[in-house]
Amino acid sequence: MANPDLPPEDLPVLGLDADDTLWENEAWFHEVEGRFRDLMETWADGPTTDAALLATERANIALHGYGVKGFVLSMIVTAVELSDGRVESRRVGDIVSWGHELLNHPIELLDGVTDALDRLGATHRLLVITKGDLNDQMGKVARSGLAERFWRVEVVAEKDEASYSMVLERHGVEPSTFVMVGNSVRSDVLPVLGIGGRAVHVPHTTTWALEEPDPAAVAAAEFPVVDRLADVVGLLAAWPAG
Amino acid sequence: MANPDLPPEDLPVLGLDADDTLWENEAWFHEVEGRFRDLMETWADGPTTDAALLATERANIALHGYGVKGFVLSMIVTAVELSDGRVESRRVGDIVSWGHELLNHPIELLDGVTDALDRLGATHRLLVITKGDLNDQMGKVARSGLAERFWRVEVVAEKDEASYSMVLERHGVEPSTFVMVGNSVRSDVLPVLGIGGRAVHVPHTTTWALEEPDPAAVAAAEFPVVDRLADVVGLLAAWPAG
Repeated sequence: MANPDLPPEDLPVLGLDADDTLWENEAWFHEVEGRFRDLMETWADGPTTDAALLATERANIALHGYGVKGFVLSMIVTAVELSDGRVESRRVGDIVSWGHELLNHPIELLDGVTDALDRLGATHRLLVITKGDLNDQMGKVARSGLAERFWRVEVVAEKDEASYSMVLERHGVEPSTFVMVGNSVRSDVLPVLGIGGRAVHVPHTTTWALEEPDPAAVAAAEFPVVDRLADVVGLLAAWPAG
Repeated sequence: MANPDLPPEDLPVLGLDADDTLWENEAWFHEVEGRFRDLMETWADGPTTDAALLATERANIALHGYGVKGFVLSMIVTAVELSDGRVESRRVGDIVSWGHELLNHPIELLDGVTDALDRLGATHRLLVITKGDLNDQMGKVARSGLAERFWRVEVVAEKDEASYSMVLERHGVEPSTFVMVGNSVRSDVLPVLGIGGRAVHVPHTTTWALEEPDPAAVAAAEFPVVDRLADVVGLLAAWPAG
């Protein structure tokens, strides 16, 4: 099924997460965390380094926001602290260059995503809602080759009920008609259910610790879980309209 | 004149830049650049440090985007290069903490801004369009105490004709009815004129080198220049509608 160039304004809006829903992302961060453990091994074992980095990220997330640049700043702070200032500044420069690698990383679409988007786009206006560095996220959309399939793209600072409400309001979307699809229960599912929308969980292999949802909130929520984005096509066809 | 809680949808839309139009910003960066010169003085004189930092920022702007975190990463890269790796990593940690200071800096509104916004908001829907770190810019709007005066806030990765067109289209604003107000000719004036809108330049004391507009483009453009945001009130009253 081909995607029309301009979907009619009466098609329902389907929200799509981007990182680890449309393309690989977390895996590249994990790979850099491995290099960071190696860099720190003079001063700390792997689990200590991991725990220290996560603590720094957690302490700074409100200030840094999500994304590569905040991750780099957190690695630098952690390296200086764990080494008690003995890490060489050249190695700190290496950490920045890892960040540049991440910002330049080629986009690897997840299996079947292009075909699934073509099918979803035939029946829905596709609204990407992603969080992170604005510049980086918009660059990834451009490099993905998928941009013309999306009705609109929104980068938000946090994916909570307030930001979903704001995004839907500004695009004239009634929450009860909205379906969000993504790999993070915390960011893509629970807040959308919370404002009266619907959501589909498409788990990916890795979940960042700061994306772990509150288990009690998950237990209280009901939402479908599918293996691949392509499975959302059949699910939406079978789901009664909101 | 009081600002109504919800301006009627038929009021024209007035675009407002934020940094150095509504509140101080560039001055805090300059202050940190002064500390950076001091930090580097073992290896380079002030002008050399300034030139090296600017060159690093210019080389990385497409990758870093605008904002504090990219500025910090550029200072770190510059420090390692200028010192040939001899700067202590503790000092690199200090650079990160300067960035945290910038991200936490109290908002200092420019003179008369609150009153001017109240008057402008009585006749216009106020749409803030700013570039930089999404998380940081949204945080500044929240901390400014001005948020309820704004119809909407847009953070964009770059203020060029394409991004203005996208923002106006998504908010249903016809460019010929749109007026943008800001301190940067390059970012707030020229691209808006380029898409058929109107723009008012409110210069501020300092302009970052990467914000310098193309002199030929400035010479070819016609736009009013006023001293203070409050002067825009009278200007709009005297300006025929687009």
